Amino acid sequence: MKKGALALLVHGGTENWSPERWKNRFNEVCSDRRVVLLPDMAFDPAEIHYAAVWKPAPGELAAFSNLRVIFNLGAGVDALMADNSLPKVPLVRVAVADLTFRMTEYVVLHVLMHHRQELYLRESQREKRWAPRAQWPAGAISVGIMGLGTLGANAAEALRHLGFLVSGWSRSRKQIDGIACFHGEAEFDTFLRQTDILVSLLPLTPDTRHILDRKLFAKLKRDSPLGAPVLINAGRGGLQNEADILACLDDGTLGAASLDVFEKEPLPADSRFWTHPKVVLTPHNAADTDADEISKYVARQIERFEAGGALENVVDLARGY
Amino acid sequence: MKKGALALLVHGGTENWSPERWKNRFNEVCSDRRVVLLPDMAFDPAEIHYAAVWKPAPGELAAFSNLRVIFNLGAGVDALMADNSLPKVPLVRVAVADLTFRMTEYVVLHVLMHHRQELYLRESQREKRWAPRAQWPAGAISVGIMGLGTLGANAAEALRHLGFLVSGWSRSRKQIDGIACFHGEAEFDTFLRQTDILVSLLPLTPDTRHILDRKLFAKLKRDSPLGAPVLINAGRGGLQNEADILACLDDGTLGAASLDVFEKEPLPADSRFWTHPKVVLTPHNAADTDADEISKYVARQIERFEAGGALENVVDLARGY
Ligand SMILES: NC(=O)c1ccc[n+]([C@@H]2O[C@H](COP(=O)([O-])OP(=O)(O)OC[C@H]3O[C@@H](n4cnc5c(N)ncnc54)[C@H](OP(=O)(O)O)[C@@H]3O)[C@@H](O)[C@H]2O)c1
Ligand SMILES: NC(=O)c1ccc[n+]([C@@H]2O[C@H](COP(=O)([O-])OP(=O)(O)OC[C@H]3O[C@@H](n4cnc5c(N)ncnc54)[C@H](OP(=O)(O)O)[C@@H]3O)[C@@H](O)[C@H]2O)c1
Repeated sequence: MKKGALALLVHGGTENWSPERWKNRFNEVCSDRRVVLLPDMAFDPAEIHYAAVWKPAPGELAAFSNLRVIFNLGAGVDALMADNSLPKVPLVRVAVADLTFRMTEYVVLHVLMHHRQELYLRESQREKRWAPRAQWPAGAISVGIMGLGTLGANAAEALRHLGFLVSGWSRSRKQIDGIACFHGEAEFDTFLRQTDILVSLLPLTPDTRHILDRKLFAKLKRDSPLGAPVLINAGRGGLQNEADILACLDDGTLGAASLDVFEKEPLPADSRFWTHPKVVLTPHNAADTDADEISKYVARQIERFEAGGALENVVDLARGY
Repeated sequence: MKKGALALLVHGGTENWSPERWKNRFNEVCSDRRVVLLPDMAFDPAEIHYAAVWKPAPGELAAFSNLRVIFNLGAGVDALMADNSLPKVPLVRVAVADLTFRMTEYVVLHVLMHHRQELYLRESQREKRWAPRAQWPAGAISVGIMGLGTLGANAAEALRHLGFLVSGWSRSRKQIDGIACFHGEAEFDTFLRQTDILVSLLPLTPDTRHILDRKLFAKLKRDSPLGAPVLINAGRGGLQNEADILACLDDGTLGAASLDVFEKEPLPADSRFWTHPKVVLTPHNAADTDADEISKYVARQIERFEAGGALENVVDLARGY
């Protein structure tokens, strides 16, 4: 039996994520399958059973009448969810250990930076001031993680291992050893009120859009060795009310923020985030995943699917993640 | 039986480490024992069985003819070793979980900062450049730890848990799960040649003085995603050949350095370390330990000693640590 072809719809991306590189990768891991890179049109769209996509244009997938599965080449599917013409077939997102571990590196790094007063210490170095401030141990800091999914659960465990008090918040109830788990709207305030450092690893959905706003920040724990609560967001820029974040940093509602994602990316040159002394900014590279791991993951899923097995990490289109 | 008195010889230290604070602390944990704070001289020196010291002046301890144990209030005893008149009684150093975990925080933070290209990312932010560079995973980086004692072994384990390749070097042979252990002079070069990020947690002794020099740096692994090897020193300033470190940072033998300790502390204002773009400097605060934990540790040891038990973490005066 002739195996269904795989179409690649890849736009943008740095060198390593270029369309040609993806094509080579998929040719390697799906060597018994035709791989076509759009906009190459020298093939019959009806042959296409699978699509692997990165930032496809709205409507671009509608042409494939025999599509069986769409694979998003990243973890977040919010951009795809906005496409009303998306074919009604299973949509699979990326969840690979390589991505998860890299996000955990990012979260641990930024939690430690704020916990260990790096902003103050770098300022001291610039001013040639040898002036150690009293330092508290990890056990004095409560890190609250919004989103206890693939990424949040792993970051929580790593932080607990370093001695932080860790809690998490998700939609459904969870139970994780050594982590205080909260869920749903009813427990949200309790979760926030005991949080010194808030880490956002939520997906962007209609429910979570602009959730990181002044109302939320005002509920975070006020009496902390840190002086004021800290925000770390590596979920999506759309989770942020950016004007609120800046105003809350200015008036002390927030003590500092590490931001990897923004409503508009690349961040415009006139954004105050670039120059704000309390902002640690990274260019959406919290989890710059090994593309080979992703193509292998997609190939494995296709094999399993064709052998009658279940797809993993299928997006719930109603929930939006 | 009247219990032997404890003399406190404490000099300098920030607020929390002030002589009066130490006196209050020891009065609490040794409530059945006389605690005298030097230079208070209203007591008979022969009554003193124990001394707890922080940077005592040379010769200061010689007055106590019935001294049984000296407790150093820190982990490093290099300053005491330089005192030839130090009474020949057991010298105990600090090894408490609180100190160990804080040092691990410092090491994990600084390894992650270099691994995740923080110097580049902060520069990009200052220049308002949205320019993510390719990022490798922790598994691509080999962290080599000099000193696999109380501190080194714990830091090694935490780094391994985050996915780094970890090796260590000590005087005697060790076996630690998942850590490549090297020991002695014979295996030193092999250890260095596979190390991308070198973490120094050695004590300062005649054998280790100025060990961090150009000859050593030149042996570190050259082909690494980092571009050039990185030095992290939280042991002692005396381990450093500081002119070599600066010259090696200048000519690319070293890619960057995190330094917590210096030959002269506070670091003089005219030191190039303050302004070197590749140096991340902290004011000897890698492990700013909870003083209450230390006084409790000393009190426990005295109790055990008087009950006929063995002292723990006794310094080997011949080795110097
Ligand atoms: N910055 C980067 O480089 C980068 C890289 C990769 C991913 N990301 C972002 O990280 C996000 C999370 O990834 P993941 O793999 O961990 O996703 P995931 O496994 O789907 O986990 C999402 C978590 O968020 C929770 N959640 C969703 N909606 C919620 C709501 N309304 N209220 C409370 N909790 C809610 C979910 O709760 P339940 O468990 O109850 O469903 C789940 O715990 C992605 O969507 C993406 O946007 C960013
Ligand atoms: N920056 C700060 O805030 C701070 C705070 C606390 C401590 N420190 C420093 O950290 C140092 C280490 O503390 P620790 O508690 O881990 O000490 P430790 O338990 O005595 O460990 C010392 C380690 O160094 C190794 N070593 C010593 N001399 C060596 C040599 N010539 N060649 C090879 N290996 C050698 C030892 O080897 P063996 O295991 O074979 O004996 C041991 O593994 C202290 O001495 C202190 O200077 C700094």
